[in-house]
Amino acid sequence: MTSTDASFLTDFVTMSSFGATANSGVDRQAATAADGQTRDWFVGLLISNGFTVDIDPIGNIFGLLEMVPGAPYVLLGSHLDSQPLAGRFDGAYGVLAAAHAAIRTRDRFVAEGTTPTFNLAVVDWFNEEGCRFKPSMMGSGVFTGLLDLAKVLATKDAQGVTVAEALHAINGVGTFSPPPLAAYSEIHIEQGRGMDDAGTTIGLVSSTWSARKYEIVVRGEQSHSGATRMKDRRDAVLGAAKVIVAVNDLLKNFEEEAVHSSISELYVAPNSPVTVAREVRFLIDIRARESSLLAQAYAHLQDAIALIEAECRVTVEEVGASIWESGPFLESGIELSRSSAETLGFTHDRVLTLAGHDATNMKEIVPTVMLFVPSGADGISHNEREFTTDADLVSGLTVFTDVVTRLALGELPESHLALK
Amino acid sequence: MTSTDASFLTDFVTMSSFGATANSGVDRQAATAADGQTRDWFVGLLISNGFTVDIDPIGNIFGLLEMVPGAPYVLLGSHLDSQPLAGRFDGAYGVLAAAHAAIRTRDRFVAEGTTPTFNLAVVDWFNEEGCRFKPSMMGSGVFTGLLDLAKVLATKDAQGVTVAEALHAINGVGTFSPPPLAAYSEIHIEQGRGMDDAGTTIGLVSSTWSARKYEIVVRGEQSHSGATRMKDRRDAVLGAAKVIVAVNDLLKNFEEEAVHSSISELYVAPNSPVTVAREVRFLIDIRARESSLLAQAYAHLQDAIALIEAECRVTVEEVGASIWESGPFLESGIELSRSSAETLGFTHDRVLTLAGHDATNMKEIVPTVMLFVPSGADGISHNEREFTTDADLVSGLTVFTDVVTRLALGELPESHLALK
Repeated sequence: MTSTDASFLTDFVTMSSFGATANSGVDRQAATAADGQTRDWFVGLLISNGFTVDIDPIGNIFGLLEMVPGAPYVLLGSHLDSQPLAGRFDGAYGVLAAAHAAIRTRDRFVAEGTTPTFNLAVVDWFNEEGCRFKPSMMGSGVFTGLLDLAKVLATKDAQGVTVAEALHAINGVGTFSPPPLAAYSEIHIEQGRGMDDAGTTIGLVSSTWSARKYEIVVRGEQSHSGATRMKDRRDAVLGAAKVIVAVNDLLKNFEEEAVHSSISELYVAPNSPVTVAREVRFLIDIRARESSLLAQAYAHLQDAIALIEAECRVTVEEVGASIWESGPFLESGIELSRSSAETLGFTHDRVLTLAGHDATNMKEIVPTVMLFVPSGADGISHNEREFTTDADLVSGLTVFTDVVTRLALGELPESHLALK
Repeated sequence: MTSTDASFLTDFVTMSSFGATANSGVDRQAATAADGQTRDWFVGLLISNGFTVDIDPIGNIFGLLEMVPGAPYVLLGSHLDSQPLAGRFDGAYGVLAAAHAAIRTRDRFVAEGTTPTFNLAVVDWFNEEGCRFKPSMMGSGVFTGLLDLAKVLATKDAQGVTVAEALHAINGVGTFSPPPLAAYSEIHIEQGRGMDDAGTTIGLVSSTWSARKYEIVVRGEQSHSGATRMKDRRDAVLGAAKVIVAVNDLLKNFEEEAVHSSISELYVAPNSPVTVAREVRFLIDIRARESSLLAQAYAHLQDAIALIEAECRVTVEEVGASIWESGPFLESGIELSRSSAETLGFTHDRVLTLAGHDATNMKEIVPTVMLFVPSGADGISHNEREFTTDADLVSGLTVFTDVVTRLALGELPESHLALK
């Protein structure tokens, strides 16, 4: 291990102390005090390493290393926020790796007297997780124009606090508008077991899974949970429970693990112990390797819902839907990563990402290269048990630094096309 | 309709204006501002009608009419609090009917120069509904010694406000300790459709249904709702949904409507859209005509839960249980009510109560007589559509007044035994 690797791991331990939980995880929901502390520490790290730091109107923190005056930037980053009681690697690893990769690359260029083609910048995207404030990937969503800034700033958490108020409370808003970008790159943990099972150190992210999220409202009618005759009830909780079971059962129509589904957030009204619920709201999350599978899954679900509506005398309304079609990453970027991993002597393979990432947004507006390192502990994520070995963290940083260096040197053809 | 009936209905309309909702209901959860306004109005009504008013340490409001110095009291009452978005009849009708029945009885004794055996008192029991603060029937529970005062005062609502703080905020606490009781009587809406379907005006409550409430925690493990392999998941929401369906399915083992079951309140952790839930907490409410049916229902449920635990890789733990065995009301009280209804020319029948009431607590410590009036609108309750006709409200008050008069005259033999 080099001294720079040791310095990276030391910084990683320090970073993991902000919002640390009892079981080695972190709890740093967006714009909470713990998120603010992590961001402040990260700003300090950037400034002390020569970055110019600024914040945009949705709270994304940018650190710029201008090496070639006026040249476009290669942007590197991920997110420092976390789910509740989450792991310390998800997002945070990528942000710290971005800073260290940029520093190493800059130092190498300076030492060698190299003038690169592009400058380097790093970013901590605000609220990638989307638990306190919805939707997820909020900072990169506003940056890429997918989300409306004013609407997002007015979004409230469960306590009625707006994004604008929460960002203000952590001194997390600015007016920065970043310069033109030549490329975006991100490294992240896999959050699945595929690479660890296969013994792959470097994942070359080749495509996203398709994902559909359906906002559902099950409507019944309030009544007394003891006195009302069963046949007169229109129980929204029972209807919702049957939809949840149906969302799981529909997987039986597909090859094992080809489709994933879940419901993980529920709101019941009035949520009183002796009143049959009038309404349950939740999000159905279905993901698949290919978009065609999702269409089939949706058809199965519609059939199941029609039966549930009749059986439970409730209505099941879809009040909103978000669709992310499966999308490939740039082949030239995958090849660039592959050759870096190959040259540096690390096992590597093409991998799909089942989770959404800021890179999923960024690849729509700029040439984007994404890398994974393995997740141990059966690939568990959004859990304090989330784990990646120091060796894998350092290997990932090594390959990522090489990729970043080559991106700065203009080796990705699409970086030049993007700026035309 | 007599002028006193008209005065009752006018007071009922005024009372229904506190915490009124858009659809003719009320929303007066315990110790909220709306509950406080209703209580204050009720205290004013009592004082202006010659009652001496005081409040006990758990916020029960007592109004005393002492007609025979030093004699024990016949207590009449119900509750002014409501479920969220509830009907205007549940509880409130009984409190107002108690006040009017006591006033009519007192006025008749004064006019006739009658000295009764017992004095009269009315009560608004605090927090019968148990939605904001659990458990339900809190005020009568403390009064009868079923619940511990200190523990109850420290109970918090979902926002962390204690019962003590909430009661203090509405000036709802005192130090009153009521005098000895000779009897308790309560009139309430049926909250079911049985009487309305049968054309019965006066329900002679003969027994409570058995009820069991099980506090359940389903425990899984947090993970990423998109990335985690389905076979690696331990999804607490899926496990909970299957338990909810099982609690409904177990009714298939019984005669129709012989057993009721529901789950109406759920808490999911972490309740984030992209994190498989680690924990779901809820209360299973099962009620039946006889306790033996509940034991059978519980056995069926245990079998179902064992399968769900294995299938979903979750644990389903029962962390608490409350059991109310079915219990008869006093036969002499039922006969006293029957003869009053008969003499006054109202249709009547023995009825069971599926819902719990303050009378359910009171009958354990003092001879208790309970009456029902019909619920229209298919018997719906805990709903703004809850409805009882003015004619039925007035008929109920007429019979209740006669019952109260006879109780005050010492016609219930057990009232004398109770004081030995």
